[in-house]
Amino acid sequence: MRAVDIIQKKRDGLELSSAEIKWLIEGYVAGQVPDYQMSAFAMAVYFKGMTTREISDLTMTMVGTGEQIDLSEIAGIKVDKHSTGGVGDKVTLILVPLVASFGVPVAKMSGRGLGHTGGTIDKLESIKGFEVERNQEDFIKQVQELGLSVIGQSDQLVKADKLLYALRDVTATVDTIPLIASSVMSKKIAAGADSILLDVTVGEGAFMKNLTDARVLARTMVDLGKAVGRKTVAVITDMSQPLGRAIGNRLEILEALEILQGKGREDISDFICRLAQIMLGLADLEVSLEEVHSHLLDGSALKKFEEMVEAQGGDLQDLYRPSQAEFVLEIKADETGYIADLPAMEFGLFAMRLGAGRAVKSDDLDFETGIVFEKKVGEKVAAGELLAKIYANQKISQELVTEFKKNVKISNEPKKVSEIIEVIA
Amino acid sequence: MRAVDIIQKKRDGLELSSAEIKWLIEGYVAGQVPDYQMSAFAMAVYFKGMTTREISDLTMTMVGTGEQIDLSEIAGIKVDKHSTGGVGDKVTLILVPLVASFGVPVAKMSGRGLGHTGGTIDKLESIKGFEVERNQEDFIKQVQELGLSVIGQSDQLVKADKLLYALRDVTATVDTIPLIASSVMSKKIAAGADSILLDVTVGEGAFMKNLTDARVLARTMVDLGKAVGRKTVAVITDMSQPLGRAIGNRLEILEALEILQGKGREDISDFICRLAQIMLGLADLEVSLEEVHSHLLDGSALKKFEEMVEAQGGDLQDLYRPSQAEFVLEIKADETGYIADLPAMEFGLFAMRLGAGRAVKSDDLDFETGIVFEKKVGEKVAAGELLAKIYANQKISQELVTEFKKNVKISNEPKKVSEIIEVIA
Repeated sequence: MRAVDIIQKKRDGLELSSAEIKWLIEGYVAGQVPDYQMSAFAMAVYFKGMTTREISDLTMTMVGTGEQIDLSEIAGIKVDKHSTGGVGDKVTLILVPLVASFGVPVAKMSGRGLGHTGGTIDKLESIKGFEVERNQEDFIKQVQELGLSVIGQSDQLVKADKLLYALRDVTATVDTIPLIASSVMSKKIAAGADSILLDVTVGEGAFMKNLTDARVLARTMVDLGKAVGRKTVAVITDMSQPLGRAIGNRLEILEALEILQGKGREDISDFICRLAQIMLGLADLEVSLEEVHSHLLDGSALKKFEEMVEAQGGDLQDLYRPSQAEFVLEIKADETGYIADLPAMEFGLFAMRLGAGRAVKSDDLDFETGIVFEKKVGEKVAAGELLAKIYANQKISQELVTEFKKNVKISNEPKKVSEIIEVIA
Repeated sequence: MRAVDIIQKKRDGLELSSAEIKWLIEGYVAGQVPDYQMSAFAMAVYFKGMTTREISDLTMTMVGTGEQIDLSEIAGIKVDKHSTGGVGDKVTLILVPLVASFGVPVAKMSGRGLGHTGGTIDKLESIKGFEVERNQEDFIKQVQELGLSVIGQSDQLVKADKLLYALRDVTATVDTIPLIASSVMSKKIAAGADSILLDVTVGEGAFMKNLTDARVLARTMVDLGKAVGRKTVAVITDMSQPLGRAIGNRLEILEALEILQGKGREDISDFICRLAQIMLGLADLEVSLEEVHSHLLDGSALKKFEEMVEAQGGDLQDLYRPSQAEFVLEIKADETGYIADLPAMEFGLFAMRLGAGRAVKSDDLDFETGIVFEKKVGEKVAAGELLAKIYANQKISQELVTEFKKNVKISNEPKKVSEIIEVIA
């Protein structure tokens, strides 16, 4: 086989054979297919797409290029969850202990944040002492004993994805559904769970800017999961505004604790309970929403979270510590009306500039900084009423306040929003 | 600027600025833009095309990445000619001395053959002693003294094209009109002539498989030439069958001599006279077709050719020597009818396998081998009549004969063909 023929075949819109895909990806990882052929291939995929069969061959070949986690020593159906990324997305912090509190084991690997999006691993590291690096044996042992663990993704998983993602990033071939789907699913499959819940975020602050694309991506990944024998459900969720109240690592831990204590905002609490219900269903456990919710109210989800924090070296005293940001500025509404828009991307980037996120991978984080919203889209606000607080370790200039306010759109019309837009099974 | 943004802009179908094109190409030649970004860019161009303005910026930036030949010391309007390649294409060998015989100087750089297509430089090298490498000073001096010279293309011309062409060759981005046009025209412009005749071949044995594509390429290059101040005319010519009688280096030299002596096939002689008339017109010399033809009949074109051969070290005795191929096999018709098809690509590859062409650049050539056709498309043939002769230095197997005959299509209907399909000025 020759890479040029495979590129040309895809360029001409033809379906590649399993052998061609395997040869190309394995050759790439082995250094026999150079970057310049792979980037031309990725661009051809951008324009011509791939069939479900091609994507599942691509995904499974990618899985084979790295370590595969064997969770078989953990009893029961192991469920995993993945979000395509967002702003203020602390869902994993609550969902994992909530599901585990029903006796369903969750062995989850998570990522770090970049640009306007945050990462669960960064948030957990804002807890003093919390260790996100664990060898496989300890990881599995903890899940066997406590029923949950969240650690950083192993470097040894899906080598093809690491190479391909870095290449796509600099060749304008990131936003193509077959390559997004295979990137996400190869990592989930390699991570070893039996069932997978996919949270496909849509909107201004997400990868998928519109519902049509989000539906295609969700459907592609669900079909892919099924094709390779993993029970898979996708939810399409709104990322037009930040999720919940807080953006920023320490601030999101605090919001997660609120929710785990049954004191969180109703919308995000309900949203997470719904996701937990679906995840439990993926482990063949049918429970009502009320039952799920009761595990927030009775502290059993919180107990699981604290057990995990303690087991991974986290300081339970520090866990509840408020943000130590030096400057806290209250932002008040200039006019009366309904919040019409809180663009997620803009506030994600705003928080990033406060130190809560990374512009480039090598940036250090300031765990204490960020934003806490008091009002969300659709809610009524009176002139002079508190909109949000900014937490910073640098003096907050008037320009920054003006920019913040510019992004808070207030109108006379109330607007209805819903976290879960669709469930695709 | 960042290459990824330029790739994305092109991927999204937007027009690039002159500064963006210049930055990208110069960065590529300087090694600052890596191959993997350039190949993704080329694939985006494949799908999204370029405007005439973009192509002319691309072309002129490419010209600037190498040496530019200064022909100003040669008096008069210098005309150049380029063919997009074909099978049995010995046109340059006759056209250059024919035009020069009218006092119009031709300083031409030519290429080598690859795959099914031949190259003028290879054909000239089949003449004992003929030197195709000349320094610029000697090249210009010969044109000043004799009015003509054909040499191999300088390695120093258009560095961007050398890099880009090699990259396109292995990334399935060769056959895209903006990149073909800029590749051809950048070399012609760097070669320094005032006027350019472009022979855009079309058909099974050519780059352009259909007339629509050939028209677009011809129009693109003519507009491009004009945009950068070079008088440019394109002819679209048929390459569905091999050009003239012979395929193979020595055999094509012999056919060129036949034509230069006024004894060639009428169709190809007329075709070349027509091209010469257009080239002379590009040098502001209006002559009738009869006058052009008279320079074949009275030996003045042949004289120029012999002068060039001698000046470049060629042996005039050897020039007229017949092929020394060890085996010559006559192929006779199995049935009576009209020749309906002689697919150029197939016969080009057939000759290549006899040693007349190269499968890869590093292959050695056998100058003596090839094919001479006695019948061409549209001509009547009787069963048992001579169709062609195969010249080989290996025993010609029955399989090879069968394959040859399989490619000669004979039908009951006469078919009309024309060498020049269209002139685009």
